[in-house]
Amino acid sequence: MPNLVYLNNKYIPFKDAKIPIEDRGFQFSDSVYEVVKVINKKILDFDFHMRRLKFSTTELKFNFKVNSILLKKIFENLIIKNKLSNGIIYFQITRGVQSREHAYRKNLKPNIIIYTAKQKFNLPNKNYKGFKAITYPDIRWGRPDIKTTSLLANIIAATEASKKGAYETILVKGKKITEAAHSNVWIVKNNKIITHPANKEILKGVTRTVLINIIHSLGLKLIEKEFSLKELYQSDEVFITSSGCLVTPITQIDSIKINNKKIGKITKSLALSFYKSII
Amino acid sequence: MPNLVYLNNKYIPFKDAKIPIEDRGFQFSDSVYEVVKVINKKILDFDFHMRRLKFSTTELKFNFKVNSILLKKIFENLIIKNKLSNGIIYFQITRGVQSREHAYRKNLKPNIIIYTAKQKFNLPNKNYKGFKAITYPDIRWGRPDIKTTSLLANIIAATEASKKGAYETILVKGKKITEAAHSNVWIVKNNKIITHPANKEILKGVTRTVLINIIHSLGLKLIEKEFSLKELYQSDEVFITSSGCLVTPITQIDSIKINNKKIGKITKSLALSFYKSII
Repeated sequence: MPNLVYLNNKYIPFKDAKIPIEDRGFQFSDSVYEVVKVINKKILDFDFHMRRLKFSTTELKFNFKVNSILLKKIFENLIIKNKLSNGIIYFQITRGVQSREHAYRKNLKPNIIIYTAKQKFNLPNKNYKGFKAITYPDIRWGRPDIKTTSLLANIIAATEASKKGAYETILVKGKKITEAAHSNVWIVKNNKIITHPANKEILKGVTRTVLINIIHSLGLKLIEKEFSLKELYQSDEVFITSSGCLVTPITQIDSIKINNKKIGKITKSLALSFYKSII
Repeated sequence: MPNLVYLNNKYIPFKDAKIPIEDRGFQFSDSVYEVVKVINKKILDFDFHMRRLKFSTTELKFNFKVNSILLKKIFENLIIKNKLSNGIIYFQITRGVQSREHAYRKNLKPNIIIYTAKQKFNLPNKNYKGFKAITYPDIRWGRPDIKTTSLLANIIAATEASKKGAYETILVKGKKITEAAHSNVWIVKNNKIITHPANKEILKGVTRTVLINIIHSLGLKLIEKEFSLKELYQSDEVFITSSGCLVTPITQIDSIKINNKKIGKITKSLALSFYKSII
């Protein structure tokens, strides 16, 4: 089975794709990334990902101009070369290689890595189910709004979920919910949909942006505001969104059952509208 | 000039030392490191570094047992092979390689990278001088006490210093000083030496530990407590310590002159005692 990686202008076998030890992404997590969903060979929300990539590389002052046309061509090539129908495209870009020192030099040449991974995709059907989440302190650095590989706090949180047989970890900062280890968090209370505002405390998810448009188009009530752990526990419905998990219902948080462990009506309706929009 | 890297049991040329793109250190900053000083071919404070390495790998639950005897042999081999007299040994260990997902699997095989870099070394002499530092918000993640490569906040801070012609960036959390981008911070006020306690908010520097012993042996007064930006500005003396910069006087912080830009008496006496102890 072919598995090619795009590495700095070349398509090479996955096993040969390596980066120098003084790449700043490796030594300092001086690196950003995107995970782009592919369904039926179609790239989802490409423009939104490019916009966020531009935000990330600009915030960190990378010597890199986002060339959407070129990147789309590479993505499409990889889908064909790797015979990808459903899965993701992983795209990482580092500031580049430099003799190790904290301060970065200008005009380093970024390292660019793009590869694919197959993942099953099923439309919500009778097996569409709710998942368990746990909560964990949000100990991430101060700029989680930039999509960097500084993800140690996220992976510790996500591993806690995995150990406890849960799907995701919802992060708690003080008494407030920010987002989850690799997704945005939404609650429904009295038919109002609530999610954390897209400020410096959360990553502005691509699926989050798409879903907001859907919520508006359905005439549902959305409030972007902070909410507490208590409000999370007492929600009528909870769901999470990300480019990887799309719209995923959460029906248990820690030991608390949400909506008696059933997928809520609004969650289901949003999921159906979302899935309709992508296929 | 030879420049060999120890990479997973082999000594290979620097240019060939590369790591797989799915190394978790590269994708998640799931990786720890040590920088060990070498002076006149002698390794400084080896045991302290091993103790901290053990702390870091244990906290992150790496599948790695610190074998000090083996590591010392590798360090010594590199010093000989790379003809290193003065400089540093850089040692990085990652959790290992795994198909990309946030949660880590147990029993991954760590990647181990060790290499050397030459640096000039001069004993404090008539050219021993004070440096400028700037201040910057401490936006690091919640566990800076673990020596991980989750260093994006540090490198942004350090680059600010570099842009402003300063040597180091002192980090301010709320109104308190924690440490600096790559060193611990000390102030002297009324003959008392003050530094942040070694809790979860700072990295417990090896040179910090060594210097505390020296302070005690000299009968000087040390207080490990938090201090504010205001106290920093109003100090009689300021200096920083790290395995890289050893004991370095700071005589200007932002636009504030410390001790009229002269190296203070206590700083000088500590530096001399420290340098005596290492040569």
